[in-house]
Amino acid sequence: MIEKEKAEQVIGILREKGMALWMIFTRETGVNPDPAMQYVLPFNLTWQSALMFFADGEKIAIIGELDRQEVEKVGIFSRIITYRGGIREELLKILEEKSPRSIGLNYSLDDPTSDGLTHGMYLLLQEHLEGTRFIHRLTSAQEIVQALRSRKTPSELERIKRAVEETEKMFDRLTKVLRQGLKEKEVAELFVGWMEELGAEPAWDPSSCPAVFAGPQEVGAHASPTEKAIKEGELLNIDFGIKLDGYCSDLQRMWYFLRKGETAPPPEVIKAFDTIKTAIQLSAEELKPGKKGWEIDKIARDYIVSQGYDEYPHALGHQVGRDAHDGAALLAPIWERYGSLPYIPVEEGMVFTLEPRVNLPNYGVMSLEEMVVIRKDGAEFLSHPQKQLWVIGG
Amino acid sequence: MIEKEKAEQVIGILREKGMALWMIFTRETGVNPDPAMQYVLPFNLTWQSALMFFADGEKIAIIGELDRQEVEKVGIFSRIITYRGGIREELLKILEEKSPRSIGLNYSLDDPTSDGLTHGMYLLLQEHLEGTRFIHRLTSAQEIVQALRSRKTPSELERIKRAVEETEKMFDRLTKVLRQGLKEKEVAELFVGWMEELGAEPAWDPSSCPAVFAGPQEVGAHASPTEKAIKEGELLNIDFGIKLDGYCSDLQRMWYFLRKGETAPPPEVIKAFDTIKTAIQLSAEELKPGKKGWEIDKIARDYIVSQGYDEYPHALGHQVGRDAHDGAALLAPIWERYGSLPYIPVEEGMVFTLEPRVNLPNYGVMSLEEMVVIRKDGAEFLSHPQKQLWVIGG
Repeated sequence: MIEKEKAEQVIGILREKGMALWMIFTRETGVNPDPAMQYVLPFNLTWQSALMFFADGEKIAIIGELDRQEVEKVGIFSRIITYRGGIREELLKILEEKSPRSIGLNYSLDDPTSDGLTHGMYLLLQEHLEGTRFIHRLTSAQEIVQALRSRKTPSELERIKRAVEETEKMFDRLTKVLRQGLKEKEVAELFVGWMEELGAEPAWDPSSCPAVFAGPQEVGAHASPTEKAIKEGELLNIDFGIKLDGYCSDLQRMWYFLRKGETAPPPEVIKAFDTIKTAIQLSAEELKPGKKGWEIDKIARDYIVSQGYDEYPHALGHQVGRDAHDGAALLAPIWERYGSLPYIPVEEGMVFTLEPRVNLPNYGVMSLEEMVVIRKDGAEFLSHPQKQLWVIGG
Repeated sequence: MIEKEKAEQVIGILREKGMALWMIFTRETGVNPDPAMQYVLPFNLTWQSALMFFADGEKIAIIGELDRQEVEKVGIFSRIITYRGGIREELLKILEEKSPRSIGLNYSLDDPTSDGLTHGMYLLLQEHLEGTRFIHRLTSAQEIVQALRSRKTPSELERIKRAVEETEKMFDRLTKVLRQGLKEKEVAELFVGWMEELGAEPAWDPSSCPAVFAGPQEVGAHASPTEKAIKEGELLNIDFGIKLDGYCSDLQRMWYFLRKGETAPPPEVIKAFDTIKTAIQLSAEELKPGKKGWEIDKIARDYIVSQGYDEYPHALGHQVGRDAHDGAALLAPIWERYGSLPYIPVEEGMVFTLEPRVNLPNYGVMSLEEMVVIRKDGAEFLSHPQKQLWVIGG
């Protein structure tokens, strides 16, 4: 079970990073979920709960008494302590007993996926710990959560691979039925049907998963499919991913719709496709453990600009896992909004997208998105990179 | 559209409570959602975003440029400002221009539903505002969010009513097919099928929605259905709710399985049922604007104890709306873990559950859950209260 695998993994990470205790402090996770929860419990907790992982290997859950049965079933906690009135007493008892030198909490300025502790819960914890020595030992567990999310175990990688495989099959299915006149919305509905067939969910907000961009676009990301019909002489870009068994894919593919009489896409369209394909290839070649995300982004970004295009207004790539945007290390430029994420070193076991983009005002968005896993020696593609523009009609 | 209705409502609430600005400060809401987001935008945002509602009526969104198109479509913001590099500059510009005396943020010690701001985002905001006068104007928007969630508009009430109605239909459907030997899991699967038919989702964690309790139980809440088969002489309790069009129901119903030769449930079972029914009735009669939650809980709790039972280990009732546990005012005893929630006055437009419980060691859990809306003069039932124990077999 993946929860057990990850619960073991985190103990090693605590030792490596010199953190004595990682504590998920949460409540009503159905309303206000901590994104780290899904790694340790596959269901929701109601009352204030402290899920504690100690560097000495002990795993203790302090939870409301109504939640006991479910937590027992998961079987990752060596001790399950329940309460009825309030959590404070039990929490202090455990802290006194174990006296951890540092208490890592899920907050982070830069990384949403390790920022699951709410501000109210932080204040509440300070109240609970008032007057004790533990209040001075609270610190960010960002490094712990990031390593836990980023370092995919073999069974996590298996699930991601399957999600990628099934997504690629759906793109192939689409190619067979694509024709001029189809509307963006109609294309999106096909994917919705195929996901249902498979028992998969969209990997992100259903309103833009898939995102379908036919022809010239004003924006070109995070937008819902429209009533626009695909016309000859246009590009079609689809950004799509599924969540299967709790793990995501995130890919983009490109089609061109030939005009009457055309036998191949116009040279400027081919040049843009090749530029994107090459930018992905060049950045993938340098993507290995120890590199910083901004260095990899810069390779793709510089290459695209060198070919006479504007730079893309986003990161080259993000991690993928439980979520499509899996947080932490990011292949991004050094912009204010990315904070420290572009400086985090790439590690073995991380899974990234590579998704540079150029805009062709007369044709549409040109953007591919591939997925890679980082091995000791470099990046290995999880997707089958699109080698040439897929051509429809003519 | 409900988002527009709620966005207007919040302006009135800001004036009433003397708050100059309510600001949802969020990012990557697909990974780390603020529960208040669903009231203003029916989809996810990616980059740091400030959704600002001013008491003067102006509504301003500062968002990443890739999110513009979707936010425009919703049409509730009078100004949409986008950025590429970082939010700080635009945020300070707006604060300088409007100079709000108070800036309400979504954090709360007691109420999960108004505690959507993460601790990392709070620290980040402090960084953005460093050296400005605005850093001293940050405060909790708990009262704003609670009023916004609690005061159901007519169209919100319509949706809740429909969810209740459809849930009651499913209970009736179940009664027709119930028989001894059915397993808890099999009963649960029936509800899953009926939800699919209707296009509804479970109102809470699918692993315990429905929760199905056949016969004597060790715990009796938040637990998943098991392989246990229903036997004669046992009680069946089902706790179930659906989410339909974004709004929830949450109800419990009771069945008794006659032993061979029995023509009615044993007197002690009937007494327990009547105790629960009466506790609901007595507390509903006193449930009106201005009352405190703990006063209402006490009526049911005292009555149950007066009949010779243990008090139930939870609150009498919670609000229902977008979420099954809709936060804020709570019909709960004054226990540490409920913080200030039992002291919040009941208001017109709130929707509550009433769900006292007693445990009958030889028969099972006896618990009903009804739903009421608070009108000017008192509580009006949204559900059709169960009047007698439904009897199967014999």
